Amino acid sequence: MAKQNNKLVEAITPMDVDFAQWYTDIVRNAELMDYSSVRGCMILPPYGYAIWENIQHILDRKFKETGHENVSMPLFIPEGLLQKEKDHVAGFAPEVAWVTHGGTEPLQERLCVRPTSETLFCEYYARAIHSYRDLPKLYNQWCSVVRWEKTTRPFLRSVEFQWQEGHTMHETAQEAMEETERMLEVYAETLENDLAIPVIKGRKTDKEKFAGAEATYTVEAMMHDGKALQSGTSHYFGDGFAKAFEIRFTGRDNTLQYPHQTSWGMSTRVIGGIIMTHGDDSGLVLPPAVAPIQVIIIPVAQHKPGVLEKANELLAKLQGVARVKIDQSEQSPGWKFAQYEMKGVPLRLEIGPKDIENNQCVIVRRDNREKTFVSLDELESKIPELLEAVRQGLYQKAYDRRLGMISEAKDMEQLCKTAEEKPGFVKAMWCGDLSCEEKIKEEAGLSSRCIPFEQESVSDKCVCCGKPADKMVFWGKSY
Amino acid sequence: MAKQNNKLVEAITPMDVDFAQWYTDIVRNAELMDYSSVRGCMILPPYGYAIWENIQHILDRKFKETGHENVSMPLFIPEGLLQKEKDHVAGFAPEVAWVTHGGTEPLQERLCVRPTSETLFCEYYARAIHSYRDLPKLYNQWCSVVRWEKTTRPFLRSVEFQWQEGHTMHETAQEAMEETERMLEVYAETLENDLAIPVIKGRKTDKEKFAGAEATYTVEAMMHDGKALQSGTSHYFGDGFAKAFEIRFTGRDNTLQYPHQTSWGMSTRVIGGIIMTHGDDSGLVLPPAVAPIQVIIIPVAQHKPGVLEKANELLAKLQGVARVKIDQSEQSPGWKFAQYEMKGVPLRLEIGPKDIENNQCVIVRRDNREKTFVSLDELESKIPELLEAVRQGLYQKAYDRRLGMISEAKDMEQLCKTAEEKPGFVKAMWCGDLSCEEKIKEEAGLSSRCIPFEQESVSDKCVCCGKPADKMVFWGKSY
Repeated sequence: MAKQNNKLVEAITPMDVDFAQWYTDIVRNAELMDYSSVRGCMILPPYGYAIWENIQHILDRKFKETGHENVSMPLFIPEGLLQKEKDHVAGFAPEVAWVTHGGTEPLQERLCVRPTSETLFCEYYARAIHSYRDLPKLYNQWCSVVRWEKTTRPFLRSVEFQWQEGHTMHETAQEAMEETERMLEVYAETLENDLAIPVIKGRKTDKEKFAGAEATYTVEAMMHDGKALQSGTSHYFGDGFAKAFEIRFTGRDNTLQYPHQTSWGMSTRVIGGIIMTHGDDSGLVLPPAVAPIQVIIIPVAQHKPGVLEKANELLAKLQGVARVKIDQSEQSPGWKFAQYEMKGVPLRLEIGPKDIENNQCVIVRRDNREKTFVSLDELESKIPELLEAVRQGLYQKAYDRRLGMISEAKDMEQLCKTAEEKPGFVKAMWCGDLSCEEKIKEEAGLSSRCIPFEQESVSDKCVCCGKPADKMVFWGKSY
Repeated sequence: MAKQNNKLVEAITPMDVDFAQWYTDIVRNAELMDYSSVRGCMILPPYGYAIWENIQHILDRKFKETGHENVSMPLFIPEGLLQKEKDHVAGFAPEVAWVTHGGTEPLQERLCVRPTSETLFCEYYARAIHSYRDLPKLYNQWCSVVRWEKTTRPFLRSVEFQWQEGHTMHETAQEAMEETERMLEVYAETLENDLAIPVIKGRKTDKEKFAGAEATYTVEAMMHDGKALQSGTSHYFGDGFAKAFEIRFTGRDNTLQYPHQTSWGMSTRVIGGIIMTHGDDSGLVLPPAVAPIQVIIIPVAQHKPGVLEKANELLAKLQGVARVKIDQSEQSPGWKFAQYEMKGVPLRLEIGPKDIENNQCVIVRRDNREKTFVSLDELESKIPELLEAVRQGLYQKAYDRRLGMISEAKDMEQLCKTAEEKPGFVKAMWCGDLSCEEKIKEEAGLSSRCIPFEQESVSDKCVCCGKPADKMVFWGKSY
C-alpha cells in the first residue's frame, strides 16, 4: 500500500501541461470517483461520496428552511407519460434508457429510466391538487437520474448521476416566478458561501433553456481554464405541463384554474466545479464546508515520548469543533503532507516534541500554504477562524482570477479574436435573434452562458448583426 | 378540503372486519404512500418519506459509529456481471427489469436494474483490494432497488423500494461472521429500541436464505394478525463471491487469499411493520423516534383572547425539545384530534382559556389515550418523559400480544390444528431435512421463520418425521 500510495501522490499531471489529464488525475488520486464496467456510470467511493453527503446536508437544510418537503417518486416513466408534454419529450427521448422486459416477459409499454421527473410529479399533482388550499406544493427528491450520453467525463457528464430535483406548484404565475428566483438564490448562495465558487446569475436564452420550460435561470461558474460550468438551474414552467397533464384547482373565486410550476436541480457536477475552481498542481483543494476531513493532525517524530499522546489529546479536544482526523500510520510526515494536500484537506496540524515543549502547534493552510504557530490553549477558537480564512481565501482567489478572464467585444471580429486568444467569458450585446446566437457559436465557437441579472451596457448594437440591442450576454465555452 | 379530510378521517375499516383493508386504509389516509401509473412502484409523499428519513438518520448514525462508510454504486448491472455467481443469478434473474435500449440504439449487452448490488460491489472490490492492509472494507449505500414482483402491497412488496445495503469484505471468516452478527444486532436494537417492535433473532434455513449466501440471519417481527414480517437480514457469504469475482489479497503471511464477505439490508418494508405492529382502528401509531411530528399542539377555543398567543409560545418553547407542530387552522378541535390520531402523532397537547388560567395544559398519549395535566413550567422536561413512556408502552403492548400468540407443537396433527385455529408463531422441533420443511409448508401452510439464537427444547423429535431433532424453529405465515 505504502508504495502504491506513494506513486499516487506523485502522479498528478501539471495543470498547464494538460488540463484534462490534471482533472482526471485528481479525480482518481483523491479517490473521488471510479468507473465500473457499466459504461459511463460512476462509482462514488467513500471520500467522493462524503463530499456529496456534505453538499446534500447543506442544501437539504436550506430547502427545509424555505418550506420544502422531501418525497420519493418512481424510478421509471411509462413511455406514454413521457410523451404528454411535447417539448419535454423531444428534448429527452433521444437520451433515455429503455426497460423493455420484466423478468422473462416483454412489457406491454416500455418504461424509461427517469432522466428528470417532471412528468411523474405532474401525474401525482393531477391527483393531489384540487383546491387553492392544496397549494403551494413544495416538493424535492434526492435520487439519481439517467441520460444516455455518448461521451462522458467524471462528474461533468455521466450516464447516471446523483442530484436533487425540486418540483413545485403554485396558485399564481407571480408566486411560481418568485420560487424560481428564490431557489436560484439558494444555489448561488450555496456556491458562493459554502463552496467558495463565485457565480454569475442570469437567464438562459431560449436556445439553451430546459426542454419544456418557459424560462431557465442559471448560475454559471468559471473554471481554471476559463470554461463555464453551469452549476445549478431553476426553471419556470408557467402552466404548460399543468395543461398537458390536466392539473386544475378551484381558485379563491371558485373558477377552475391551472397552477404554475417550477423545477430546480443541482447535481454531483458541482464536485467537478470544486476541483476545477480550487484545485492546483498538488491536487484537490476543498472548501471547508464540504471537506470530509477539515483538519488532519500529523504527529512529527511520533516515536518520541509524549508525541502520539499529545496528538490524540488534540484530536479529542477538537472533535466538537471541526471534522478532524489523525494519521499516526508509519509513513513519513513528508509523505503524509503530500497525501493530504492531494486530498484537499483545508488545514494541516503538525505537532512534534519541540512544539509540545512550547505548548504550541503548527497549522498550515492548504489554499496558500501559510504557516501559523498556534498556542494549544487557543486551538479551539483558532481552528474555526482559520477554516473561515481558507473559505474567504478560496473565494477571493477564484473571484480575482475570473475578473482577469472576462473580456468585452463589440463586433464579430473582436469576438472571434478574443475567443481564440483568451480563455474566459466575453461580454457582448445581443439582439435576441436565434440566428445571431447560432452564428456566434459557429464562427467564434462560443455559446451564450446567460443573460445576467446584473446588466451592463457594452455598446448599443448586437455584436453579430449590428442591429440595436439592449441585452448583455456572457458568452463562453462550456463543460 | 375540510369536507374531504373529514371523509378521510372516517374511512378506516376496523382491523377485525378486514385486516388487509384496515392496512390499506391507514396507508392511504395517513398519506404514507401512493401508487403511480408505473405498476407496483410506490410514491412516498412527504409524511411517509419523513418517516423513512428518520429511520435513515438513526441507522446511518449507527452504521458510521460501527466504522462504515457510504458509497454510491451504479444503478445498472451488465448481464454478464450478474451471471458470475451461479446461485445468485438463479435467485434474481427471473425478477429483474431489463434495459435493452439506450436512446434509439439497442445495447450490445442487456443491463438489469439492480435488484441488489453484491455483483457491483464485488467487481469494485476486485480492483480495490490487494493487500490485507486494504481490509476490512466496510461500505454501505442508500438507494432503491427493483424486483419485478407480480403482486405488490404497499411497503411490503413493491417493484421498486428504498433500502440500504451494506457490503463488507474481511480478512478472515471469523471477522466476517462477527460483522454479520454485529449488523443483525444493529437492526434488532433499532427495531426494538427505536421502533418499539419486539423481534426474534435467528438464522434462516437453507431453503429460506439469500441467493448466494452461506448463512442468512434475520430479525422476525410479529404483526397484529399473527403473521411474520422479516424486518432486516444480514448475510454471511464466506468466499463464494470472492472466488467467482477473483477478489484476492496478499495476506500477512505473504500468500494469496480470498477475503470473506457480508451484506445486510433494511428497507421501507419496516414502515409496513410499524403500521401492523402499533396501529389501531383510529389509524397509525408512530414510535416517537421516527414520528415526523412528535407533539401536535391544538389550541382549544382559539378565538378567545390569548389562546393562540400562548399556544405559539409553547411551540417556540418546545422547538428544541421535540419535533413539534401547531394546528391553528379553522377546523374544530374534535376534527383535529381525529386527524392527528390517524396520523399517529405520539402526543397531543391541548391548550385552552381555562388551562391558561391554571398555568397548565392537557397532554394525551396516542398509544393508550392517557390524559395528563402538565404545568407549563414543567413542560420541557415532561415532554421527553412522556415520549419515552409512549415508546415503552408501545413495546410492552406489542411484546405482550406476541407472547399470547406463540404456541408449541410436538407433532404434525398439533401443528396443523394450531396453524388453522390460532394466528401467530408455532415453536416446533425440526430435524434439518428440507423434505420436512416442505411438508410443513404444504400441510400446515407454515414456513420456517428462523432457527432462533435463543433455543428451547420443545421435544426431542422432529415435528414432522419424528426422527431425533435438536433444532427449535419458529414456524409461521409471513408477509
